[in-house]
Amino acid sequence: MGFEYLTNVPPEQAKSEYLRKLLENGFSAQVETVPVRDSYGRITSRAVYAHLNAPHYAASAMDGIALHARDSFGATETTPVTLSADQFVVVDTGDPIPEGCDAVIMVEDLVQNDDGSVTIHAAAAPWQHIRQIGEDICAGEMILPSFMEITPAAIGAMIAGGVLELEVIRRPAVGVIPTGDEIIPPCADPKPGDILEFNSSIFSAMLKDRGADVKTYPIVPDRFEAIRDTLKKAVDECDMVILNAGSSAGRDDYSAAAVREVGEVLCHGIAIKPGKPAILGYRGEKPILGVPGYPVSGIIVIEEFLQPLIDAWYGRENDRGSRTRARLTRPVVSGLKYREYVRLRMGYVGDSLMASPLPRGSGVVSSFMKADGILEIPQGTEGYAAGEEVRVRLLRDRGQLKNTLLVIGSHDPLLDELSDLIHREDRRIFLSSAHVGSMGGVMAVRRGEAHAAGIHLLDTETGEYNRSYIKKYFPHGGVRLVRCVGRRQGLMLQKGNPLGIGSFADIAKAGVRYVNRQKGSGTRILTDYLCRKEGVDPDLVYGYEREELTHNAVAVQIASGSADAGMGIYSAAKLYDLDFLPICVEEYDLLIPEKVWNTGLVKQLIRTLKSEAFRERIKAMGGYTLDRPGEIIDVF
Amino acid sequence: MGFEYLTNVPPEQAKSEYLRKLLENGFSAQVETVPVRDSYGRITSRAVYAHLNAPHYAASAMDGIALHARDSFGATETTPVTLSADQFVVVDTGDPIPEGCDAVIMVEDLVQNDDGSVTIHAAAAPWQHIRQIGEDICAGEMILPSFMEITPAAIGAMIAGGVLELEVIRRPAVGVIPTGDEIIPPCADPKPGDILEFNSSIFSAMLKDRGADVKTYPIVPDRFEAIRDTLKKAVDECDMVILNAGSSAGRDDYSAAAVREVGEVLCHGIAIKPGKPAILGYRGEKPILGVPGYPVSGIIVIEEFLQPLIDAWYGRENDRGSRTRARLTRPVVSGLKYREYVRLRMGYVGDSLMASPLPRGSGVVSSFMKADGILEIPQGTEGYAAGEEVRVRLLRDRGQLKNTLLVIGSHDPLLDELSDLIHREDRRIFLSSAHVGSMGGVMAVRRGEAHAAGIHLLDTETGEYNRSYIKKYFPHGGVRLVRCVGRRQGLMLQKGNPLGIGSFADIAKAGVRYVNRQKGSGTRILTDYLCRKEGVDPDLVYGYEREELTHNAVAVQIASGSADAGMGIYSAAKLYDLDFLPICVEEYDLLIPEKVWNTGLVKQLIRTLKSEAFRERIKAMGGYTLDRPGEIIDVF
Repeated sequence: MGFEYLTNVPPEQAKSEYLRKLLENGFSAQVETVPVRDSYGRITSRAVYAHLNAPHYAASAMDGIALHARDSFGATETTPVTLSADQFVVVDTGDPIPEGCDAVIMVEDLVQNDDGSVTIHAAAAPWQHIRQIGEDICAGEMILPSFMEITPAAIGAMIAGGVLELEVIRRPAVGVIPTGDEIIPPCADPKPGDILEFNSSIFSAMLKDRGADVKTYPIVPDRFEAIRDTLKKAVDECDMVILNAGSSAGRDDYSAAAVREVGEVLCHGIAIKPGKPAILGYRGEKPILGVPGYPVSGIIVIEEFLQPLIDAWYGRENDRGSRTRARLTRPVVSGLKYREYVRLRMGYVGDSLMASPLPRGSGVVSSFMKADGILEIPQGTEGYAAGEEVRVRLLRDRGQLKNTLLVIGSHDPLLDELSDLIHREDRRIFLSSAHVGSMGGVMAVRRGEAHAAGIHLLDTETGEYNRSYIKKYFPHGGVRLVRCVGRRQGLMLQKGNPLGIGSFADIAKAGVRYVNRQKGSGTRILTDYLCRKEGVDPDLVYGYEREELTHNAVAVQIASGSADAGMGIYSAAKLYDLDFLPICVEEYDLLIPEKVWNTGLVKQLIRTLKSEAFRERIKAMGGYTLDRPGEIIDVF
Repeated sequence: MGFEYLTNVPPEQAKSEYLRKLLENGFSAQVETVPVRDSYGRITSRAVYAHLNAPHYAASAMDGIALHARDSFGATETTPVTLSADQFVVVDTGDPIPEGCDAVIMVEDLVQNDDGSVTIHAAAAPWQHIRQIGEDICAGEMILPSFMEITPAAIGAMIAGGVLELEVIRRPAVGVIPTGDEIIPPCADPKPGDILEFNSSIFSAMLKDRGADVKTYPIVPDRFEAIRDTLKKAVDECDMVILNAGSSAGRDDYSAAAVREVGEVLCHGIAIKPGKPAILGYRGEKPILGVPGYPVSGIIVIEEFLQPLIDAWYGRENDRGSRTRARLTRPVVSGLKYREYVRLRMGYVGDSLMASPLPRGSGVVSSFMKADGILEIPQGTEGYAAGEEVRVRLLRDRGQLKNTLLVIGSHDPLLDELSDLIHREDRRIFLSSAHVGSMGGVMAVRRGEAHAAGIHLLDTETGEYNRSYIKKYFPHGGVRLVRCVGRRQGLMLQKGNPLGIGSFADIAKAGVRYVNRQKGSGTRILTDYLCRKEGVDPDLVYGYEREELTHNAVAVQIASGSADAGMGIYSAAKLYDLDFLPICVEEYDLLIPEKVWNTGLVKQLIRTLKSEAFRERIKAMGGYTLDRPGEIIDVF
């Protein structure tokens, strides 16, 4: 349980000192010669000059005859000239101009005589209808300057100019070394404690995208000698090396020691979060990057410290994506000590670009996948309030963000199916859902942050769903409530119900481990209501404060044996093969702001709700009833 | 000399009927299963669901001890609880939570006793400091909807979710068949009449860029059976086939007949220019495209008719690049009969986006390479006037266009060297030069279409260069004249001067074939002046009306033996190893509008002119003198 002392170098300082040190040691792009036909997308390392003229011979530009222009001089409408067969040569378009000829007359302008001669009624100017040598490219001329990306047409121009191979910037070879005793190659049935090695696949795709060749080494166990020897081999074989360490504190961490033995360490510990324990090392001109084991940390460190080196290798600007301003939907709190990177889910509602922070756990690779943008919170800043305008870096193009339906509110797996159906129907449209509970959805719609919210809010006095909440929170209207599904709620239980739970009140029985939904979710409101109604004291329910954010997450805890019961929908119980004790059927509807009602996005949403395909998917999931989905419910 | 009858189907009609016919015949994307780790950039063909929870086991989120929370209940600052060694397990971050435990207490919150027990001063809530199963991804949940592009993070999420392979849209296989007796594989020493086969390399890069796999077949000679048999084989082996025919009229053209024998022809002849003789054919659901032999025609036909099919295969929108408005610098005339595609060289001068039409010869692949945009002139439109605002399709991003120095005017190879030097110095900056002669350059600067113009305009009365022209054309100033080079002009002659040309006047001698520069070029003005001065009658100079646009093009005609003499600069004569009869030294300067003087682009241009690197390049080219290049010449 020992910690190595880490520095806390500001990231910009670390980045610039790292590059300076490497350049000092001779870091620079290598070049290689490749065949032109395989050079698409590569970058020239020096100017390319033509070897040949294109065209490389004078060619007829027409079908007709080639002749010496002088022989046609004097020909007019009234004084035609007849050329004998030895004074011309028949040529087709593209044919070389025969020796001694310097003009072409089109076949349409000829009278062909029976004796093989031709008569013309106009003189030919020298070089008329002839494609001159070098009309397109002259030998010796520059075809491409240095450091240009090679396009399809440039390939054609080079071959036409007689250039068959050229010198380009070699792709840097990046070695990736995964380490750790607990790390295993990807598989479908890992044992507890096993960690699937997917970092190298993520890193590899990121680096290939920037123009690197990636070599992934086999997983190295947590033995110093093994790590050091593999690192040495990788530095010998590659231009840059990533040592992907088990960076978790408490683990034996040989990374820094191995880098020190193979090369040198510029700094260990950078003021960024995630990514703090990164190591910036090198051997001569070759960077060696110690990258933390958590995927999101690793990704940030590679984006911040390795991709700039690849950009420097290619001599291009470090393109960090376009920046823009967006409105935060939730507050973001940050420590003062680090620059923090927060992934955002983004979208336009009307003209406003909204940004919702995604979960920041460093293991949460799915949030990384869902990210539409990144917020960088500078060192020394405590964070931002909800509603604040912040400057963000976009990871998707605006067109896609403008075509994204934002559905924020109660979780239901049907939202994923809707997302799939809508995108299959119109591939320009995307649906992005965030699970913040029904009340969170109501608030998001109030603040204009969503195109729709899934809600199932029980009025415990009337037994009615949703309507009274809408009247309360939207006293002036401005929203529509759209029928979605009826869904069966109940207690999800261990398969076979080993504890013999027979009613809701049994969740308080001794030995029953409950797992709950988060406050503000419709299901939690229902559960709290059921407690009051059935006289259950939540303080006596073991695990009542254990909160999960989705029905599926609750079901997973029960299926994996760490809980015995939890409220949720039938489809989640079915997905995880759990027992289910039905309690009620509730209305799960969509709340949609009036001002986006007539947008193409919402129209497609409504069309899909009404579609046969939606009906089929819902039926396959189980536990739902459908009653005219997509129709407007009369609220006001 | 026979022509096949061609139809003239409007392109939109041809395109939509073609797609409709193919869909009717079952055209649709094929799918394939690929390993997730190799799936970067591929497109999902259906939704991907997780097989595993991630994490797949409950893990400690801290270093400390795991215990059953119940054993800690009641512990407070004043009533500590001591746990015996059998009541807890020491865990590191990431370790699985041992059987029977449901909470973790951090090492910082423990007092470790000598007997191996620990004392705690606060109760643990069930599941505190534990990463729950499925916290990131729940088994059964959708990871990716259908038809999504796979990102690096999605690869990580899939592997974490236990997905090791997935179904993606297979890349369509496109077969490319080059045909023609005159076509030979790329080489450095073609014979007259040989045409280098570079179309397949251009097409291949264009198609790979859109996500196709390309199979190029060996060149097929102009024999019907050979073409038909290769076509049949290609249609069997591929999803789409391009038959790259010798489309020039007058050639035996077996393409349409071969397509008809292997499949069917929807139409032969489309109202586009270039590209008219295209064939839209098919066998069942497989498109067979007959593509003209001229590269630019072929490129247009593939862009217009094959790329949309690849987009349809992938189910994505046909992305034709962004459109914008730009000002034409020269008139563009078009026939009424066709939709015409005109490549444009583009750039910003100040805030105005300028578009200059590039040469339209269908063999001119270099103009295709230089194109920054495309102007589509609709069928039935006669063209546009100079200065007119037209809607164009951009082929480069605006950022690059905004960083492009437009140098329009007299040709000199030193402009290419400048282009290379400037881009090497600052890789964000590009230099694009257009050769329209000195007077063309003066006019371009007057119209605000260029950042600089290379000019060498002799005042035949004073013998002075450039100044008097500037005073005349810019009576109110607004421009600066910057020293560039002095350069030696003279007669370029066949190596060894076989005709014994000893003075300028000798160009009129019998048997001397002259090659001239275009009207408006500084060299032509000089030549016309020399004629007057030396008493040479241009009408008596054989080839005086034969015009080339650059010094190099003149030199090439002499070097290739089709001309004996032409005025030009020493460096061009040297490049092509010609004899040179010096006539004068002229001032080649750069004319720069005042309003762009302080831009970063022009500042970099001036810096480069003053650089040692420029001096070295100029010296290597030969025939130049340098006198304080980059300094402003006092004109007004």
